[in-house]
Amino acid sequence: MPDHGGNLDDALARFGGRAEDWIDLSTGINRRPYPVGELRPDRWRALPSRADIESLHEAARGAYAATCQVLAVGGAQAAIQLLPRLSQPARARILAPTYNEFAAILGAAGWQVDEVVELEALAGADLAVVVNPNNPNGLSHDPAKLLDLVSRVGRLVVDESFADAMPALSLASQAGRARLLILRSFGKFYGLAGLRLGFVLGCQADVALLAAMVGPWPISGAAIEIGRRALLDRTWAEQARARLAGDSRRLDDLALGAGWKLVGGTPLFRLYETANAAAAQARLAEAHIWSRVFTGQPGWLRLGLPGNDAEWTRLGAALLR
Amino acid sequence: MPDHGGNLDDALARFGGRAEDWIDLSTGINRRPYPVGELRPDRWRALPSRADIESLHEAARGAYAATCQVLAVGGAQAAIQLLPRLSQPARARILAPTYNEFAAILGAAGWQVDEVVELEALAGADLAVVVNPNNPNGLSHDPAKLLDLVSRVGRLVVDESFADAMPALSLASQAGRARLLILRSFGKFYGLAGLRLGFVLGCQADVALLAAMVGPWPISGAAIEIGRRALLDRTWAEQARARLAGDSRRLDDLALGAGWKLVGGTPLFRLYETANAAAAQARLAEAHIWSRVFTGQPGWLRLGLPGNDAEWTRLGAALLR
Repeated sequence: MPDHGGNLDDALARFGGRAEDWIDLSTGINRRPYPVGELRPDRWRALPSRADIESLHEAARGAYAATCQVLAVGGAQAAIQLLPRLSQPARARILAPTYNEFAAILGAAGWQVDEVVELEALAGADLAVVVNPNNPNGLSHDPAKLLDLVSRVGRLVVDESFADAMPALSLASQAGRARLLILRSFGKFYGLAGLRLGFVLGCQADVALLAAMVGPWPISGAAIEIGRRALLDRTWAEQARARLAGDSRRLDDLALGAGWKLVGGTPLFRLYETANAAAAQARLAEAHIWSRVFTGQPGWLRLGLPGNDAEWTRLGAALLR
Repeated sequence: MPDHGGNLDDALARFGGRAEDWIDLSTGINRRPYPVGELRPDRWRALPSRADIESLHEAARGAYAATCQVLAVGGAQAAIQLLPRLSQPARARILAPTYNEFAAILGAAGWQVDEVVELEALAGADLAVVVNPNNPNGLSHDPAKLLDLVSRVGRLVVDESFADAMPALSLASQAGRARLLILRSFGKFYGLAGLRLGFVLGCQADVALLAAMVGPWPISGAAIEIGRRALLDRTWAEQARARLAGDSRRLDDLALGAGWKLVGGTPLFRLYETANAAAAQARLAEAHIWSRVFTGQPGWLRLGLPGNDAEWTRLGAALLR
């Protein structure tokens, strides 16, 4: 299984402490989550109805400025698991480096997977994958250029898991045309990854195929209610975007003070070049702050954003040690 | 998509009222759910860790008296969706009549599906499916007879979605041997279908295959915490079994009084032969009580069990009208 951020087990095993003692900055999950609020008791008890799920789809269309078919799934990861089955295995090209699950899952399902480093090199693939903005380096792509690619590949998958904080990058308004599939994560921007919610936006045929794969009840009643409430709350989203933009600059300032260089990032995470990422990770881990390092990139260290003053203070102190 | 119980949308569209006005007896979901209690806030926020998920698997092994590999998935339905992919499409046989998703999903994935009416007729199938106890008629099979079948099929899938209330029927203690796969539903007996939780019990190879299909985070943090708590609570389970056994006899008495005949059932639902199930369903629906009828079986009406005195009173009155 590919290595991920977000698994504090490793940190606990190596550096001790209880999970609640740690500040987990190893992911791009917003540490100021959307307030969960109260849940109707029947959300736990009853099977989600078609009308419930459709109301969530409608909220997602609104939040993402989309008019196409939408399918709620148990996280963007759940959608990635299904990608290999949208057509017979053939040639997939992935714009790399990026989230390592795409190559792993397509390869395991019999696809020939090539990682390419230029957008243009995706042309000609049966399945092309772009993460926009990209994880972990924050590289972003002009939506017009991605759109231009659609006619030159069998299917273009754009993973917009981190696009909520950079809505101008989204192609969601163009979803619905053939050969274009967009993945959205709910949990990262709204800080509720444990809810397991994500969306696929695409043309009718693709969404129908995926809907048949996930079956009638792919998400929980809690995901429906909380997801719907959050996606309808534009004020919260605007404020979160503004706060994350300011906080990502603040994190860059701290990192520069520690002698690191910014490689890139999104308002939900930053990637830095350090002299020795393993040593930097260990130094932060002594203060029970968890970060993400990358096999094959000995200098890269990725940090999510602290969520409150106490976390900023602890991170600042740890970086100065 | 196959017809299911549990979708109140149809009832609301045909007979009016708000969802909360209805008593939904169209499913076998326990209407006295396990108390959800408080959730740790990080259950919503963080990605489930491997250790979290493993602790749930351990609780499931305990509750089901199993020692084999276990995989938590987003409901028994989520496991059914994956069955066609455990091997190349070949000949599947399903002991019928039963839950209609098996035939639909296997058939759509290219399997040759035959429905058979005798257990012995499953022998020779590449994939054999038995629901034990069966939905909707409550037919149950001696675990020893099922075990005897394992060596005579390519793979035997035993769906024990309703076995929590009849634990003596379970083959979970035998799971782990090759060619045997057991599905368990969490939401029905514990009355929390909206949580989306179920389990697969099987041999290492099968469970590893399924784990790769569902990916690293197939269930929510809430499912992990509530599921684990409930599965460890043997006192609640014992009391629920006793209450459901008594209440199913009470329901049979009411139904007999209405002139219906018991076809069969489990402690979570009862199937009755009526003179005209569509008319009986409409009569109950006038009192905003929803039931399940079956295409091709014009007399069959299935009822779940009322959850409290007020619901019993309303059902009793509706049946006497």
